[in-house]
Amino acid sequence: MLASKTVTELLEAFASPTPTPGGGSAAALSGAVAASLLVMVAAMPKTKNGTPEDRAALDEALPKLQALQKRLTELIDEDAASYDGVVAAYKLPKGTDEEKAARKRAVQAAMRHATDVPLETFRAALALIPPGRVVAEHGNPNAKSDASVAISMAMTAAGAANANVEINLDSTGDAAFAGETRLALKAELVEAARLLAPISAALGWKGHEPPRS
Amino acid sequence: MLASKTVTELLEAFASPTPTPGGGSAAALSGAVAASLLVMVAAMPKTKNGTPEDRAALDEALPKLQALQKRLTELIDEDAASYDGVVAAYKLPKGTDEEKAARKRAVQAAMRHATDVPLETFRAALALIPPGRVVAEHGNPNAKSDASVAISMAMTAAGAANANVEINLDSTGDAAFAGETRLALKAELVEAARLLAPISAALGWKGHEPPRS
Repeated sequence: MLASKTVTELLEAFASPTPTPGGGSAAALSGAVAASLLVMVAAMPKTKNGTPEDRAALDEALPKLQALQKRLTELIDEDAASYDGVVAAYKLPKGTDEEKAARKRAVQAAMRHATDVPLETFRAALALIPPGRVVAEHGNPNAKSDASVAISMAMTAAGAANANVEINLDSTGDAAFAGETRLALKAELVEAARLLAPISAALGWKGHEPPRS
Repeated sequence: MLASKTVTELLEAFASPTPTPGGGSAAALSGAVAASLLVMVAAMPKTKNGTPEDRAALDEALPKLQALQKRLTELIDEDAASYDGVVAAYKLPKGTDEEKAARKRAVQAAMRHATDVPLETFRAALALIPPGRVVAEHGNPNAKSDASVAISMAMTAAGAANANVEINLDSTGDAAFAGETRLALKAELVEAARLLAPISAALGWKGHEPPRS
């Protein structure tokens, strides 16, 4: 379990020249850190204006953020496991035509799973943006930089997960799924990016600070 | 030590409603993950074209990346410690004029340290970009998505560290330092962003994948 390793050990695992953990797990970790920082700000006793509205909005956002934090933490491991499945499928025997066909099916199935996992990371990371907006608009102004870092890391997590979906999509052997997924991803990214303008206004971003879209 | 906590414990520490660890440590962690992924790709036996030039370029980049990985890991803790120093300074007594003056000096000194630490994180994260370009141009093409995620996380780390410098800079009580630092940061960010075009070309980014500048 990567999540039960120490931070130093996890970094060593990322640095080792074995295929996993790789960028997909890093994307999930980035999302989990973003969720955690948003949980911190949402749970602070101090709010933007100290009104009951601020408190109610943050209290509603908090359990959503906690659930996403939990899920994104699990996805650090699930991404590595799914790619280990791809590596195992490639190692299947390919001596006979029958073996070749079985290996191809196994690789495609493993690739489909290794696409579904970063797809879920992508969606979980983007799902941080609406409650992230609540934190930006109602949270403790002293923690503005924490909220900014969190939004930035959530968008990076989504972009990184997207890159991992892209790279595996063509190997799933399902062109219709690949096409539909690419379109859906683009639409979801655009939808989330629309929320960056009000977030930017609430956090007072000045140009080079907002995250990439 | 945050780096010797488990990943789950570190995420809980980010999520707890105490001021540290916060965005500054998250920035350093993001940079450390980026460095680790670049180390992974640089250390892989397989290179872009399998030439001695590829191997030599990667072998030269590797120790730089390893040193930055080590430093960024240390900065996860140093950032939290520096902000704990700010919190401690704010708690000093302010009964008499003498106490008030001493407290003000202590807060300014602590804020200066809490600016210098993310400033180093910013520079260490940007220092990943030149060897990151070497990895993008000479590294294993099968690990393209890992290199992409790494570059994206390095730029996010720099942006996040920048936000943390910004937020503390005005409280250092040193307007000349604040002005010079802001100008230097902008120039260094522009310089690093110039390297994103060749990196993007080497990794085949298509529009929404490249990191923010």
